[in-house]
Amino acid sequence: MGALGARTVLLSGSNRGIGLGLVKQLLAAPKPPLWIFASCRDPEGPRAQELRDLASKHPNLVLLKLDVANPVSVTEAARIVERKMNGSGLNLLINNAAIYTPTASLDVVDAEDMLRTYETNAVGPMQMAQAFLPLLKKAAQESTEKGLSCSKAAIINISSVMGSIERTPATFLKPVISYRCSKAALNMLTKCQALTYGKVGILCVALHPGWVKTDMGTQEADLTVETSVQGLLSVLPILSEKHNGTLLNWEGKAIPW
Amino acid sequence: MGALGARTVLLSGSNRGIGLGLVKQLLAAPKPPLWIFASCRDPEGPRAQELRDLASKHPNLVLLKLDVANPVSVTEAARIVERKMNGSGLNLLINNAAIYTPTASLDVVDAEDMLRTYETNAVGPMQMAQAFLPLLKKAAQESTEKGLSCSKAAIINISSVMGSIERTPATFLKPVISYRCSKAALNMLTKCQALTYGKVGILCVALHPGWVKTDMGTQEADLTVETSVQGLLSVLPILSEKHNGTLLNWEGKAIPW
Repeated sequence: MGALGARTVLLSGSNRGIGLGLVKQLLAAPKPPLWIFASCRDPEGPRAQELRDLASKHPNLVLLKLDVANPVSVTEAARIVERKMNGSGLNLLINNAAIYTPTASLDVVDAEDMLRTYETNAVGPMQMAQAFLPLLKKAAQESTEKGLSCSKAAIINISSVMGSIERTPATFLKPVISYRCSKAALNMLTKCQALTYGKVGILCVALHPGWVKTDMGTQEADLTVETSVQGLLSVLPILSEKHNGTLLNWEGKAIPW
Repeated sequence: MGALGARTVLLSGSNRGIGLGLVKQLLAAPKPPLWIFASCRDPEGPRAQELRDLASKHPNLVLLKLDVANPVSVTEAARIVERKMNGSGLNLLINNAAIYTPTASLDVVDAEDMLRTYETNAVGPMQMAQAFLPLLKKAAQESTEKGLSCSKAAIINISSVMGSIERTPATFLKPVISYRCSKAALNMLTKCQALTYGKVGILCVALHPGWVKTDMGTQEADLTVETSVQGLLSVLPILSEKHNGTLLNWEGKAIPW
């Protein structure tokens, strides 16, 4: 895998699943980032033990309390990171936090589930990008690189093939309406972010991690966390302006909208 | 234009703009529906005067109080229609109600706007379909027609090219993030409805009415309400199972996701 040149990385939902896998492999890289800001809703809680163990061994790993569905929490976290960065920018924002209601067929899905899922999966990434925009812009300005890349400044939205309208007939065995609608909206958001933030040097890409053996994906899933994360981390270094505003899978293959 | 064979039609957001235009042209058709249920948030209010004037002249027009963003209101309206229909079904549900924040660029859009717009534009149509499903199923069962059609049983979601991720670069002069994300989600919902409800004889299609001179579209827009509505009403009768789960414009042309 090509080296990920990002010196500073921030992730949401990093206490388990793909988020935790990303933190582990970033820490273990030949040239790990200078700073990894690993955020989750409750870094002091029982579900963040593994993250705390990692932080105790890796001084470049900073744990951050952040609930993407809470605008105040997002703004507060951005302020903390800004102080910590002391004038330099953030290269890579990975919006990974997401929720999922496995039983949400059209027979049972309700307004509350639709709104709650949208709030975390689509509105959350929008607010994260808004809050960390000054730091991402700073990284883009600091860079001498031409074009767009993850080593310069990038927003990666962890989306899903479940948000592909085109692919829905092939994946509808799990209807998961609230999740699908939120991810279709996240794909739209990614395109809008690419058109808006691309102009100031920030790459914006949506990535599908595959169907992964996590709490969300269940143990029936195709891929281990390790395989999916290896794939994602191999894709990041090859992303450039031609990928801005696209949806790719963990192997770098394009997925239609 | 081919005749629309639907005997009973229900519309949301029918006190102005495209909704009101649909009501007028349906009433004026050579063979108007037996019943038109024209719903809006406040049929007694000052903004529904034109609708009330029409109802006073047309005994087949029934005004209905309905706020698509309020689950209780949707259920209550469905109960009233069910009583009125007295055992027969509803052929055509047109989810037309929608809201729009013209200023919502990524610089200013916030969580509240995102959630409110999603609630009306995506969650509303989902709940409308759930609430009127028994009546739509009844219409499908009563029909002797093969396949899917608007004269048998159909859900038409009034969507927008602004929800097309593929077309976003061409339409981004108006960023309208909250609206775009809600309509991308509505397009996904339409595909899910097509896959779920198509099996019980209900056609589900998303239609883009064009950029129309309404309160939402402003007077700068391309099309008059009359032209857009004429187009939409010409498209409805030609829709069949091959259009189930697609997005078409007011001229019947497919729009990519």
